[in-house]
Amino acid sequence: MSSVLFDKYLPFFRQAIAAVENRVYWSPFPENPAHLGAEAIEEGRQAFEAYRDASFYLDQPGVVGRNGGEVSPYGFALNVSYPVCNPDALIMAARSAMWPWVKAGPEDRVGVCLEVLHRLQTHGVEMAFAAMHTTGQSFTFAYQYSLAQALDRGLEAVACAYKEMKQVPYRSSWTRPQSNGGSVTMDKVFTPVPRGIGLVIACSTSPTWSAFPGIFANLVTGNPVIVKPHPQAILPLALTVAVARMVLKESGFDPNLISLLVDDETESVARIAALKPEIRLIDYTGGMAQGDWLEENAHHAVLFAQRSSLNCVVVDSTDDYKGLLRNLALSLCLYSGQLGATPRLVLVSREGVKTVEETVSAEQFGRDLAATISRLLDEGEKALDVMGCLHAEWLKEGIDAAREVGEVLRDSSPVENPNWPAARIHSPLLVKVGVLDEQAFAKEYFGPVSFLVETGTTTEALALAERVMASSGALALGLHSTNEHVQELAADLSLRQGVPLHLNLTGNVFMNQSAAYADFYGTGANPAANCSFTDSAFVSRRFFLVQTQSPVPASA
Amino acid sequence: MSSVLFDKYLPFFRQAIAAVENRVYWSPFPENPAHLGAEAIEEGRQAFEAYRDASFYLDQPGVVGRNGGEVSPYGFALNVSYPVCNPDALIMAARSAMWPWVKAGPEDRVGVCLEVLHRLQTHGVEMAFAAMHTTGQSFTFAYQYSLAQALDRGLEAVACAYKEMKQVPYRSSWTRPQSNGGSVTMDKVFTPVPRGIGLVIACSTSPTWSAFPGIFANLVTGNPVIVKPHPQAILPLALTVAVARMVLKESGFDPNLISLLVDDETESVARIAALKPEIRLIDYTGGMAQGDWLEENAHHAVLFAQRSSLNCVVVDSTDDYKGLLRNLALSLCLYSGQLGATPRLVLVSREGVKTVEETVSAEQFGRDLAATISRLLDEGEKALDVMGCLHAEWLKEGIDAAREVGEVLRDSSPVENPNWPAARIHSPLLVKVGVLDEQAFAKEYFGPVSFLVETGTTTEALALAERVMASSGALALGLHSTNEHVQELAADLSLRQGVPLHLNLTGNVFMNQSAAYADFYGTGANPAANCSFTDSAFVSRRFFLVQTQSPVPASA
Repeated sequence: MSSVLFDKYLPFFRQAIAAVENRVYWSPFPENPAHLGAEAIEEGRQAFEAYRDASFYLDQPGVVGRNGGEVSPYGFALNVSYPVCNPDALIMAARSAMWPWVKAGPEDRVGVCLEVLHRLQTHGVEMAFAAMHTTGQSFTFAYQYSLAQALDRGLEAVACAYKEMKQVPYRSSWTRPQSNGGSVTMDKVFTPVPRGIGLVIACSTSPTWSAFPGIFANLVTGNPVIVKPHPQAILPLALTVAVARMVLKESGFDPNLISLLVDDETESVARIAALKPEIRLIDYTGGMAQGDWLEENAHHAVLFAQRSSLNCVVVDSTDDYKGLLRNLALSLCLYSGQLGATPRLVLVSREGVKTVEETVSAEQFGRDLAATISRLLDEGEKALDVMGCLHAEWLKEGIDAAREVGEVLRDSSPVENPNWPAARIHSPLLVKVGVLDEQAFAKEYFGPVSFLVETGTTTEALALAERVMASSGALALGLHSTNEHVQELAADLSLRQGVPLHLNLTGNVFMNQSAAYADFYGTGANPAANCSFTDSAFVSRRFFLVQTQSPVPASA
Repeated sequence: MSSVLFDKYLPFFRQAIAAVENRVYWSPFPENPAHLGAEAIEEGRQAFEAYRDASFYLDQPGVVGRNGGEVSPYGFALNVSYPVCNPDALIMAARSAMWPWVKAGPEDRVGVCLEVLHRLQTHGVEMAFAAMHTTGQSFTFAYQYSLAQALDRGLEAVACAYKEMKQVPYRSSWTRPQSNGGSVTMDKVFTPVPRGIGLVIACSTSPTWSAFPGIFANLVTGNPVIVKPHPQAILPLALTVAVARMVLKESGFDPNLISLLVDDETESVARIAALKPEIRLIDYTGGMAQGDWLEENAHHAVLFAQRSSLNCVVVDSTDDYKGLLRNLALSLCLYSGQLGATPRLVLVSREGVKTVEETVSAEQFGRDLAATISRLLDEGEKALDVMGCLHAEWLKEGIDAAREVGEVLRDSSPVENPNWPAARIHSPLLVKVGVLDEQAFAKEYFGPVSFLVETGTTTEALALAERVMASSGALALGLHSTNEHVQELAADLSLRQGVPLHLNLTGNVFMNQSAAYADFYGTGANPAANCSFTDSAFVSRRFFLVQTQSPVPASA
């Protein structure tokens, strides 16, 4: 069955491998739900509705109760209950599931993983609604980011891991000349063997996109996976696990190769599971504190951690001032600043922003950026699609705290969504600060909060950005400059701190969106993340190569 | 200069990459010094002699004194003194050397590394004598293992790391269709950036072979290297560092990209250096205790550790009994059991060894193995070439302790080498034990000590081998069996514990010798080593990929 799947997807999979090798644009999963038609979207919506006020079915072992409690940021309780399973039972089941999966070999595992990804796509609308009502993303954005682009990142991980496993042939014939004139031939067989069981700990703002690389990289390299969702964003991953289990079962494998681990009332199950010696791989996305705890305590496992970051944009000069403003404003508004690579600090020199016509003063730039944000928000439904909701109530405290740090250039206020009167929507806050306020602004305010930092010179802006990103980590550095010398300084900084540099983005490419197959997300080189989606270090540590050699008789 | 070097070595380097990709036999560095002629060997010997009773010259920064004190296992003091440098000074110098090296790019770095390897080859005889008189290897074996095969492992690391860096193109053009019918094109540039400074901590029995993978993998990925030799085996690495510094200087790079860190009187400089935050990579070969200490204390660095192991051979049945005995006896004698993958436990069932003619009883097998070892040792100069010397005095204690564990089948005794009357040579000890003695025999007796373990059945032998290797780690598992079912059991065990399986070795391939380009040494899957020479995990963690993107104007 699964070899059939590999053959079925081979032409498609070859495209994935070519895209990853050449780092070119490729988008196999449509990002706009409009192509499905209104009827399919309504069907998907109903499929999502059917999960509400119900028990989510998963035939997992070791069920000790049920738990749930997700509340949509759009203003209603989901009231879905999930089976709570004993981590030891899931681990035991995963262990017995593992060896047939290992022995099936890379191709069969690729086939199953690709079938899972395609099957998830057919549940796309339902997945997008599940993401929307757990993360607070708009439906449009959820379909793009939490479905299509998440599938991209999953597929990318499968392609990278397969490439890595296939760097070594399955078998080789090794012939050494002998000093007596003859030769000796050895038959060598190389088998990729998984590290163990993987635990994937997901977050509440990006439950699928951030978790799919770890889930699929583990599965394709032979490691069973236990998926631990954030208590506020279980449904998208419960759907993922359910679909994956079904495909595994259909393909003749034990569905316990993937299971869902839901918090019980103590909410410490992630830590309990992480300390089990059988867990040899941990993929983590979330805050610094939990990430640090894992780093300090789970030494028996390999940890791939994506944590918080403080991304900077340095504005020096531009030949498209309006494009700059619009691109930056949209980056700040997108999903209300809840993406890992969202710019947090906009650094501008008191010498102003050199444009084609004039030098815009720092004050004027601040007013222009604030006005551009406000104009974006005037765009009605489109603006609501861009912003979505705040995923959690506590983000409001961050907004309140940030207001006190400096001069408010653009205040945050509640925004109404006519379709969802109770939705938790707050417009972006932009606060102007000076370099002396560093202690107050150089920490993460998650959500729709950003600071305009006025520095003496662009060089000072770059130095401040470097210091902040080195200590707090960063996933993206933006630079607007037409000055080659400044560009070089920023490029050097980007290499030194391991932060991708986005130069002069004035169109429809944004620094907080990264394209699978082409863009690496995270470098592993600074505190924001110790890994990258998806480089070879992300996949090669998930398996070992074990070899057998035996002599080939001279007569053969 | 260095691009010229890349071009110079390109045809050769392509062969290295092809060998690694196909895992076939390739031996670019001659393993037998005889091809050089007597004169060249005498010149090399004199070059080695010139280091004796002298100060080794290295123009490194931060010199605080001199130290040395190596004593040849062949019975005389080398009396070489090396500069002792402050680790902070070496780190500072490495940091300032790094960025031009990074910016030179992978090809230039490959060129320099290949020139270093070839230059070391021209110093081959002198290197072999240096290895001989520090490790106790025979000259023949030192030339093969500590020179030619060490160069192989260095070259293999360069090839693997280069392949890994080149999986991502230097530059890509990314074009996305826009919803309005146009398109947007981004220019993306990808740069491999090193992790930081690498510390390579070498051992006394394999100073070059075990250290070259880390040294060259670091250099080619852009990481400066500080080499910390074992106090008893400094000279081979001092020569290596001196040659590498010279090539770097000639190529226009800062020689402080590689430096030698010699112990002062406290002998704790390895730990002091390992804890420096600038050290981001540690390659370690040596005992369990120091390895465990590094694992527990040097969390800021990535640790690649090759530690001790307890390798097993299970003897069930054979169609070449004499070949089996001779192959196994030679494996036990080779460099007096001081290789990491030397078999320690030979497990045989009380049901005996099935051969073509008869079933040999376990008792008879023990007598036959002991006799074969003794016959090997009767071969005069050839036997001395195989055995070399014990690298340290304390190994004798292990021999004495092992004698007490069971019935001595073949006793160890001092062996005379007419050319080196004071050489520390002791013939192999073979002790017969039962499964109940596990506590006494299942620990590492480094050196010429092995145990014949009698079990009830072959299945019990496999189970015992698995238990021992799972807890103590192993680099090699041998099996002699003509029974397909037993072969399958052993293959499964090998996959489960991540131990390479050597099946029915009866000729001139030995389980404690591994061939670069084809064989992986260590899998990373068990306590013997957390890394492998050389898989992609060994090289891919030494660099990050940092990317820059900028829009390409529509008119371009």
